[in-house]
Amino acid sequence: MTFSVSILATGSELLDGRVLDTNSNFVARELADLGLQLKRVLLVDDDMDELLAGLRDLSAVSELILTSGGLGPTSDDLTRDLVARFFTVGVVEYPDAIKHLEEFYHKRGRVLDPSNLKQALLPAGSEMIPNTLGTAPGFRMTGPGAGSHNVTICSLSGVPKEFTKMFLDSVLPLIKESARETRPIVKHSLKTFGIPESIAGAIVQGCKLPSEIKVSFRAALPEVHITLKAPRGTNLEMPVARVKAALPQAVVYSEDEHVSFIQKIHATLSARAATVSTAESCTGGMVSSFLTECPGSSDVFVGGVVAYNNSVKEQVLSVPKEIIKEHGAVSAETVRSMAASVRDLLGATYGVAISGIAGPTGGTSDKPVGTFYVGICGPQGAFERRCFFMNERRSVRLYAAYVALDLLRRTLEGFEIPETYPVIGSLVAPQSKG
Amino acid sequence: MTFSVSILATGSELLDGRVLDTNSNFVARELADLGLQLKRVLLVDDDMDELLAGLRDLSAVSELILTSGGLGPTSDDLTRDLVARFFTVGVVEYPDAIKHLEEFYHKRGRVLDPSNLKQALLPAGSEMIPNTLGTAPGFRMTGPGAGSHNVTICSLSGVPKEFTKMFLDSVLPLIKESARETRPIVKHSLKTFGIPESIAGAIVQGCKLPSEIKVSFRAALPEVHITLKAPRGTNLEMPVARVKAALPQAVVYSEDEHVSFIQKIHATLSARAATVSTAESCTGGMVSSFLTECPGSSDVFVGGVVAYNNSVKEQVLSVPKEIIKEHGAVSAETVRSMAASVRDLLGATYGVAISGIAGPTGGTSDKPVGTFYVGICGPQGAFERRCFFMNERRSVRLYAAYVALDLLRRTLEGFEIPETYPVIGSLVAPQSKG
Repeated sequence: MTFSVSILATGSELLDGRVLDTNSNFVARELADLGLQLKRVLLVDDDMDELLAGLRDLSAVSELILTSGGLGPTSDDLTRDLVARFFTVGVVEYPDAIKHLEEFYHKRGRVLDPSNLKQALLPAGSEMIPNTLGTAPGFRMTGPGAGSHNVTICSLSGVPKEFTKMFLDSVLPLIKESARETRPIVKHSLKTFGIPESIAGAIVQGCKLPSEIKVSFRAALPEVHITLKAPRGTNLEMPVARVKAALPQAVVYSEDEHVSFIQKIHATLSARAATVSTAESCTGGMVSSFLTECPGSSDVFVGGVVAYNNSVKEQVLSVPKEIIKEHGAVSAETVRSMAASVRDLLGATYGVAISGIAGPTGGTSDKPVGTFYVGICGPQGAFERRCFFMNERRSVRLYAAYVALDLLRRTLEGFEIPETYPVIGSLVAPQSKG
Repeated sequence: MTFSVSILATGSELLDGRVLDTNSNFVARELADLGLQLKRVLLVDDDMDELLAGLRDLSAVSELILTSGGLGPTSDDLTRDLVARFFTVGVVEYPDAIKHLEEFYHKRGRVLDPSNLKQALLPAGSEMIPNTLGTAPGFRMTGPGAGSHNVTICSLSGVPKEFTKMFLDSVLPLIKESARETRPIVKHSLKTFGIPESIAGAIVQGCKLPSEIKVSFRAALPEVHITLKAPRGTNLEMPVARVKAALPQAVVYSEDEHVSFIQKIHATLSARAATVSTAESCTGGMVSSFLTECPGSSDVFVGGVVAYNNSVKEQVLSVPKEIIKEHGAVSAETVRSMAASVRDLLGATYGVAISGIAGPTGGTSDKPVGTFYVGICGPQGAFERRCFFMNERRSVRLYAAYVALDLLRRTLEGFEIPETYPVIGSLVAPQSKG
């Protein structure tokens, strides 16, 4: 098997929801940079039977298991005993660990309380892993697991700051060394906006790629990221070209997984020495907020007007009263006027305007909730698009902001501007309960 | 054993670090409210052998297993086949599922693409779980697991919004029914802004609450939510009053866990028939975007100016050139002028202005990165505050936007305005790498 790494994250605080496990995600990202993928992540309670069962399950499929948590001085800190029992050894006091504890307290002007000495007990035969940021040292030990191969267990503190440092200092070098003989993967990402995940999936399936190529889809809503992966040594050039050719033009905004949608827009504006200004109604400043999230925004973004109330459209952006009266605030005519006006007013190369009905009220049979107009005004002229996205308020706003930015990107890159935008499915970005 | 619930979270995006699993934490918190604790959480790749092995392991120790993800239309969506194989049944097309898909697309003015029909295949004998927010229905099925008892598997969409709704609608009632011996609790939440979690913790500890009261702290950054919990029948009135009295004045913005910070500000403005306008520099429209996220924003929010470039401050907001020249764009004088000007220009009851150095560059020894000024101008007069928050760009912007809104809230509610704002610790919300 390829070098397989799993995580056993321990602690009742993970299972009763008080703490969100972020250590595993950190390790996953570090491994991904090496072309490795975590095998399993298992969260279990501080209960010896549960811990032993979990460790056994993981050892059957992993060569390296990281444990996080359970190294503290209190009664529910079981990891030392767990690993000792797993490898059927005892725990012994490590002089280096005592020295570390004494120094740790001394440096902070405190005296080592005997209750803390539990933290100097490590499984016999294990190697201590230093913890420079906290009291509890970790340890590393190799022996037979539930599978036919040996397993190495590295036990680290569960405190994210300590876990991270211990992992980078003492575990990552070990993984780099061990994974040398494995065949990690090659991968190539296509970051897209403007195509639903299901259609992207159908298109890729239609490409009939060689079987060694695995394709994963991630709805980083409203974006969809397509990643092709294959064993190292596979040439991904042809398969990537085939997928790109099959996708609608211009939906791939970047093939660099580290470049965000906004960074791409910044780079495109910068390359053309162009600047942008915004006039927003229903998005309420979301577009300008996105445009200013990266360092150096001031090179490409001048400013904007949040014309929420019609009075602002009329008084600050000089949208003629008659246009609003005749066509409505949500209309091609209004966004045309807004885009041209904000461009003039702020002296930017481009003006981007949005007006829409985010809901839940305000819709009509003619313009139902989810209808919005985007206007772009630039040196080559102006255009407007009407879009409709049936979803709840938050998603309509997010989608409208993205469409506006994407139309700017396509304009800058010289792509043809689509008459309509395909709907992108559910648009709520993954996030924890607010 | 007590009623045991485990989670199988699937998807390579969880194991290569692109996505942080937040669904499990959500379930954990919901179960905690019932006095239950999750048994295990297991994250595995979209690989049939891995999935089957994981399901088998969990079924040995769980009566209910929730799966998240793998219900989409693409080739890496394996959950239907997984559960069918686990219970050794086939998959069959569910007419109700087809009906749901057709309606979902029809409502959005689209035609059901045949590639989506995969989502209507469910394990034979399972019961469909509706997904009102997305395309993929879930399902529920009971049968023998790896242990001596039957196991029920509920398969839900992995998209957090859909997962959450499906869980609350279809799974939670089932758990409440099955978990007859649980110990329900009473709880009371204090939602705060303006106090670091560690200080809140120390303050609560100093309250010496009765031992049956458990207090949990959740950093919903930059907010901190304090929740007191106790066995049903406990009177929480006194302990809550004691904690509130010990906390700094005005940091508790709501005691209703369903009221968000922005909803609270809306309600406070509404109650006073007041409106607000914004003039933002470093936050780039974040404050106006927050103010317009709730339905009915137009009643309290007029509009705003994103004065990113100084030219916008001067030309649109009429900030005198000399003020910027003499005091700098990031100064009390500048935000005073911005707040007064935007209030006048847009005809709002209040003007809120922010200017700061979000970084990573632009700092000086006098005004280092993380320095920002907030100005509030209203019928009772105007004031400004200088704040400093040493953190990375994203957090400085978020914190600045919150401080501006919070100063407005305190003004409206008649609280004394603090001279300085305490720093709120690290403000980076847990989320996946962009």
